[in-house]
Amino acid sequence: MDTPLNIQKLLDKRMAITTALTLIDWDEQTLAPEGGMELTSNAIKILNEELYSCMVNDEIRQFINENKTDETAIIRKIRKDYKDNVGIPKDEFSGFRTLTSKANRIWAKAKEEDNFDLYKETLTQIIEYVRKFARYRQKEEKTLYDVLLNDYEPGFDVARLDVFFDMIKSEIVPVVKKHRNDKSVNSFNYKKYDIEKQKQFCEYLATYLGFDFKRGVMAESAHPFTTNLHNKDVRITNHYYECDLEDAIFSCIHEVGHGLYELNIPDNLTQTIVGTGATMGMHESQSRFYENIIGRSKAFWKPLYGKLQDTFADNLKDVELEQFIIGINEVKPGLIRTQADELTYPIHIMIRYEVEKMAINDGADVDELKKAWDQMYEEYTGIRPERDSESILQDVHWSGGDFGYFPSYALGNAFGAQIFNTMKKDLKVDELLESGKISVINDYLKEKIHKYGATLESNEILLNVTGEEFNPKYYIDYLKEKFM
Amino acid sequence: MDTPLNIQKLLDKRMAITTALTLIDWDEQTLAPEGGMELTSNAIKILNEELYSCMVNDEIRQFINENKTDETAIIRKIRKDYKDNVGIPKDEFSGFRTLTSKANRIWAKAKEEDNFDLYKETLTQIIEYVRKFARYRQKEEKTLYDVLLNDYEPGFDVARLDVFFDMIKSEIVPVVKKHRNDKSVNSFNYKKYDIEKQKQFCEYLATYLGFDFKRGVMAESAHPFTTNLHNKDVRITNHYYECDLEDAIFSCIHEVGHGLYELNIPDNLTQTIVGTGATMGMHESQSRFYENIIGRSKAFWKPLYGKLQDTFADNLKDVELEQFIIGINEVKPGLIRTQADELTYPIHIMIRYEVEKMAINDGADVDELKKAWDQMYEEYTGIRPERDSESILQDVHWSGGDFGYFPSYALGNAFGAQIFNTMKKDLKVDELLESGKISVINDYLKEKIHKYGATLESNEILLNVTGEEFNPKYYIDYLKEKFM
Repeated sequence: MDTPLNIQKLLDKRMAITTALTLIDWDEQTLAPEGGMELTSNAIKILNEELYSCMVNDEIRQFINENKTDETAIIRKIRKDYKDNVGIPKDEFSGFRTLTSKANRIWAKAKEEDNFDLYKETLTQIIEYVRKFARYRQKEEKTLYDVLLNDYEPGFDVARLDVFFDMIKSEIVPVVKKHRNDKSVNSFNYKKYDIEKQKQFCEYLATYLGFDFKRGVMAESAHPFTTNLHNKDVRITNHYYECDLEDAIFSCIHEVGHGLYELNIPDNLTQTIVGTGATMGMHESQSRFYENIIGRSKAFWKPLYGKLQDTFADNLKDVELEQFIIGINEVKPGLIRTQADELTYPIHIMIRYEVEKMAINDGADVDELKKAWDQMYEEYTGIRPERDSESILQDVHWSGGDFGYFPSYALGNAFGAQIFNTMKKDLKVDELLESGKISVINDYLKEKIHKYGATLESNEILLNVTGEEFNPKYYIDYLKEKFM
Repeated sequence: MDTPLNIQKLLDKRMAITTALTLIDWDEQTLAPEGGMELTSNAIKILNEELYSCMVNDEIRQFINENKTDETAIIRKIRKDYKDNVGIPKDEFSGFRTLTSKANRIWAKAKEEDNFDLYKETLTQIIEYVRKFARYRQKEEKTLYDVLLNDYEPGFDVARLDVFFDMIKSEIVPVVKKHRNDKSVNSFNYKKYDIEKQKQFCEYLATYLGFDFKRGVMAESAHPFTTNLHNKDVRITNHYYECDLEDAIFSCIHEVGHGLYELNIPDNLTQTIVGTGATMGMHESQSRFYENIIGRSKAFWKPLYGKLQDTFADNLKDVELEQFIIGINEVKPGLIRTQADELTYPIHIMIRYEVEKMAINDGADVDELKKAWDQMYEEYTGIRPERDSESILQDVHWSGGDFGYFPSYALGNAFGAQIFNTMKKDLKVDELLESGKISVINDYLKEKIHKYGATLESNEILLNVTGEEFNPKYYIDYLKEKFM
């Protein structure tokens, strides 16, 4: 059916307001002056009220009632957004968005000053909002946290995730422990790398991977991220440290993975409410696939490593490709998620998953969360955080109100491994990488995943591509084969 | 009186939408990928419709009717915006904004390729819209162009401006002609200046002038400009050419002049509809005052020139301060407005004023405009443009629909000279500059001009500050004294 005119107008307005809010957020994270957000948040609040009014109103309610059995993607999404938001009073909705638009700076300051106390009140308020909203919205979901998980990954609840993370605990934690005392093999990474040259190499790398700079930009921000206004304006960021080459390179590959997904959304879906990646987990499956499965492989670097060596001749001229590959795949359990190696990574997520359950389902206070965090790190990685900034303050997500998001990272890895298992049967991946034909892989993912935008959920995509719904076995097998 | 709640809500929404549109425009001019604007303009169109609906609706109409005699600044502005827009159908309003949001790229391409033909159709459409809107809006104004002039400089119509530009023609054109064959005295300007060092110096310079980087940013764009979301987020841009040091320095000072105005808007006005500079001309009076009257004076450079010399030691070590000051005040009639010296500048504006009158009042077609442009340049500067890019294609303004804006530049210069004439009686300007106390001058302007935002019109401000309404004599005298 065609969308009726009055509904289409609301969708159009929603698109316009979303464009504005996306850009304000991008700007805040990349460039805005530090003193500006307090007043800018007045505008954000009003724009969010307008956004809310587009999703929840009598016309939409009536439209949903008249199309109860229609399962087309747009209607499914209209229905979900209505249902997700109708219970939340508009002023609380915008009040929460205003709080989170300011919280980022408060969190950043607390992290910079290495002082959790500065952030506790804000975090407590955010958790209160998140729990309250989940309570408003809870219907068939068993726990409050299930409500949130459903926002990022429909179909994945605590019951299902407990099984997944139990497998991580029983199968991966022991492998991590085996590597605890490995000798370091990537000292080359911590030499001095000129930042301008890092930027130039990353631009080259992004282009090499297929990122289209006519339809995208790469800027800088404290934490690399990807956002987009539509499929002709996709934006990634990176950050650069003089004494950490890997960080910029793999952040770049990761964000390009996200970026390609958004660039591949077809024209007839972009600027609609299903014109973006399917779910957070499916998005992460693409970024982590490029970053780890492709980006840390020898075949990928074979045609590329010479360029990197030339760019940083002083540091890398004596580092052979073989040694570089071993270095970038080093396992070194640590405290910081974003610097984690591929094997340790899901442990970081497992800990956050447990902490979030405590916060949302058990109502634990922020001091208890901190205590649990540190204890679990000691138990599972063998290291206890000494400083707030390397403990519970390290991630930006909660300051944006994003509870329930973290599991998508681990799921993304697992989706990626499952998809890779099928891809290997269809494509000669190593040969393609060695001959620089990344575009064949990109096209494969476009055809199988990207072109559907958010018209399908992740389990539907996995079923289409791999012949079965989510199965964590492929991820566990992949990690064990690579790191045992 | 207090603004009623329903009207306040409309004003708040208008502020939020304006914030969004300002940021989208900033982003487009500084960073957005070139392929993005076509789709982004879908969002711009809708946001402009929302903006229009905030200004023109039954509630506002009723409010105006109930407050016919109220002359408070906010109500005056609500009334003006209603009156200015009510005659324009909403779809034409947003259609025009959509056209202009795309026109910038078309103009830029035509200029780059030095081909007016590529831009003619777009420019013709823009002029048609502008004339049509002026016709809808024309009330007591004698000519269509008067309607437009009133948008940028209330109180200044063709009758008044003809007198002003006649003075420029009779008194300044002869002085310019005297300088036509001057020997060049600023060859130092065209040596090679490292761009990174130019940026660093300009950041230093902006700070020196009082620009607060906690409440502002400086980025790059093809054409320097200033914009702001509110008084805690003021943004200026600059551009840098390796072989033109002056361009970056004086663009920087100019934009800082605009920026200080917006930074000095008081908290109780910012984010209201009168929370910005009074008029375009008054804004230009500040930027041109800083750029020329302050920025090209010997007293200003006395404490600063050593720093510039150190930064570019290879090029400037043998250039004495005296020689530098003579160089930056060189008169050299040319074709490009943005590179014009202070004396020739109003001639450029005079020509645009005549061309705009032809376009708007006489309905001349774009070929006729081009012909008139080139003829007048030959007549008044002695040089005939050879290429489209140095002729009618040189300015960005018309692509944004801004007809009637150019006269504000010349008026701004003249306002600045009139204000300076009074300031000299109140402050020992040279002594302040020599001792680096720019803040005293900044505070003077803040107290006399900036703090009123747009609650006063330019003639009201001039009367308050100088004891008389606009009087072009001070500007003519200033130029003749400096350059005869």
